[in-house]
Amino acid sequence: MAEGKTDHALERLVFFSDAVFAIAITLLIIEIHPPHLPRTAGDIAHIAALAELIPAFVGYFISFWVIGMFWMGHHRAFALAAHYSPRILGWNMALLSIIAFMPFATAYASANYMQSVPTIFYCAVLLLAALLNLKVNRTATSPPMVDETADPQAIHYVRQRGLAVVLGAATAVGLSAVLPVIGQMGLISIPLWRLALGRLGRKAPAAD
Amino acid sequence: MAEGKTDHALERLVFFSDAVFAIAITLLIIEIHPPHLPRTAGDIAHIAALAELIPAFVGYFISFWVIGMFWMGHHRAFALAAHYSPRILGWNMALLSIIAFMPFATAYASANYMQSVPTIFYCAVLLLAALLNLKVNRTATSPPMVDETADPQAIHYVRQRGLAVVLGAATAVGLSAVLPVIGQMGLISIPLWRLALGRLGRKAPAAD
Amino acid sequence: MAEGKTDHALERLVFFSDAVFAIAITLLIIEIHPPHLPRTAGDIAHIAALAELIPAFVGYFISFWVIGMFWMGHHRAFALAAHYSPRILGWNMALLSIIAFMPFATAYASANYMQSVPTIFYCAVLLLAALLNLKVNRTATSPPMVDETADPQAIHYVRQRGLAVVLGAATAVGLSAVLPVIGQMGLISIPLWRLALGRLGRKAPAAD
Amino acid sequence: MAEGKTDHALERLVFFSDAVFAIAITLLIIEIHPPHLPRTAGDIAHIAALAELIPAFVGYFISFWVIGMFWMGHHRAFALAAHYSPRILGWNMALLSIIAFMPFATAYASANYMQSVPTIFYCAVLLLAALLNLKVNRTATSPPMVDETADPQAIHYVRQRGLAVVLGAATAVGLSAVLPVIGQMGLISIPLWRLALGRLGRKAPAAD
Repeated sequence: MAEGKTDHALERLVFFSDAVFAIAITLLIIEIHPPHLPRTAGDIAHIAALAELIPAFVGYFISFWVIGMFWMGHHRAFALAAHYSPRILGWNMALLSIIAFMPFATAYASANYMQSVPTIFYCAVLLLAALLNLKVNRTATSPPMVDETADPQAIHYVRQRGLAVVLGAATAVGLSAVLPVIGQMGLISIPLWRLALGRLGRKAPAAD
Repeated sequence: MAEGKTDHALERLVFFSDAVFAIAITLLIIEIHPPHLPRTAGDIAHIAALAELIPAFVGYFISFWVIGMFWMGHHRAFALAAHYSPRILGWNMALLSIIAFMPFATAYASANYMQSVPTIFYCAVLLLAALLNLKVNRTATSPPMVDETADPQAIHYVRQRGLAVVLGAATAVGLSAVLPVIGQMGLISIPLWRLALGRLGRKAPAAD
Repeated sequence: MAEGKTDHALERLVFFSDAVFAIAITLLIIEIHPPHLPRTAGDIAHIAALAELIPAFVGYFISFWVIGMFWMGHHRAFALAAHYSPRILGWNMALLSIIAFMPFATAYASANYMQSVPTIFYCAVLLLAALLNLKVNRTATSPPMVDETADPQAIHYVRQRGLAVVLGAATAVGLSAVLPVIGQMGLISIPLWRLALGRLGRKAPAAD
Repeated sequence: MAEGKTDHALERLVFFSDAVFAIAITLLIIEIHPPHLPRTAGDIAHIAALAELIPAFVGYFISFWVIGMFWMGHHRAFALAAHYSPRILGWNMALLSIIAFMPFATAYASANYMQSVPTIFYCAVLLLAALLNLKVNRTATSPPMVDETADPQAIHYVRQRGLAVVLGAATAVGLSAVLPVIGQMGLISIPLWRLALGRLGRKAPAAD
């Protein structure tokens, strides 16, 4: 098979992944069922009905941000790849199967918010996604897939970011087990982990 | 990273956005549940069941037109961009999260049509989308993203159109608060605002 | 704006349309709800439950074929277009809004099969899609959109096919009004109409 | 029509197919309904509710893998095609209609797991998909579609893989009829069939 062909295979893989990310992120909304009040219901009743959906709205925006973040990481990693390798297929499929699972985990955690098991379940699904994401992004930025002309700094950044997401998700799982109310807040630690890893990284030279 | 690479990042962003717009617009329909009448039901009963869905049908076509309009604006703005900039990512994601939220807002407003809170809620979601749309389109048509060879008139048109959508959505929110029956009609003011802005624009020279 | 830019706008329009066609065709299935029988249910009960879904299965495959056929026509027409024109946008959006409406019309007709109103409703939605399809395909194969080097025979074929779909859908509406049992069968007349138009066409020379 | 045009038709067909595969695979999740327990429910009740969903989770991951496998086969076959032929359209549409049907078959088999009829139904749908997949992949890797420069070994591999999927699905149908508990396990025979076919193939020279 010619070079152009293998690059086309890479493009089609990226396209398929993008589509799954886009569909999963957009399907999040269909798990929120619109309240249907009797026509005699007043404004207060409507506001109360919307207020009851606040955990579902919060869950929607958190998961939208989370899936979006995974998509951006995938985006960045594959921008550094120039060749197709069949070894990425299985791992990428596994990652996509967890991403497509997110609407369920989100709906379950939102319907039973601040409960221990649903919050741990949600964060564990996220941790699994983060681990698969790390594996996929490392594979895409390693030979034989990596673009030989890619900036080593950019590769280093992608990998470090992947690691920070794993550590942040692990923090969220740990927090959920102790105090479910603040479980998902553990995700906020992702930028902190990135910062911490960045400090460590600045001491060691970036590997190519 | 080479020039070609950054353009590829822009293409992938546009593709992802298009997919979310397309999915959100097509998901609008699944919030309308088909009536299932007993087999003894006559034609009159069927016509009555369909008639009851008229607000849902109207809501579907309004939101299809609204999401389609936002997509066209996005389309026009990104046709004028030639370079990728990471600063667009966050705003674009925020815009997409509101676009993907539209099926919920539509179903809620349709199920409780002509009610004050649902109509204001729908129009407020629209206003938020319009504001994010303005920000995204301005970023895409400004340096460093803008195509240096792009027609300044075309850039001016895209931005003015974005502003007219904001003003139209704000009009709809205002009308909904006063008279929910005609709330969504406020959207019809969008072309009027565009006309008004066009008159103002003709006096001032187009900025590049 | 350069030539390349306008072609890119055409590509993005085609992509968006393809996505809506693909999503609408795949959403058809979610309107069929899987039977959930008690674990003590025997094979006969299961076969009976599946047999009850036969109208839903038939409706699914008819609509899959119908949407697929519209997509193929769109596909053929835009393969003959080389330039973008803003005048296609509105008509294309209108066509897509009816295509995305098909899962509802299908579910309604299937849930109330062989009933007069649901069958007429389904066929009328189809007729509307066929008319918009005709308009979109004619616009895409006319100046200023048409590829100047396109084969006039191919253009003639696309337009004739569009007309046959309109006549077939009209036949289905007529049949539904008289005898709902065989209403959707009217669609089978599409190839007959194409044949009839083909005979007429052979007498007249193909226009460019 | 120029060469470039027909290749564009091939690309658009591949894109449409990819989109349907991606949507069908992502829609699998919406058939699993998240448990919504009262706020007084303890951790044990939550774990029990999740445990009850295990057959649904298993069904989700099996079908994700199955659709993913069909997509990869489609991917591989079309990577070897260089020309468009209208004769692929009908078969490809038929394949897509069965792929898009998978979320229903999965939900039905999962909701009634280890029951005879639902398991046979699921495996029979799979067998149908495997047969259509074989036909589509053979058409894409035969003249006039095949890339004349394609490696005959790669073509041989794609076809053999398609045959192994058919034999594996047939094994699963057979097993389901005898012992529904292990029916879907029959799919595990796919790699075994591929191995067996590979041994046979090594004796005969690969045809181009």
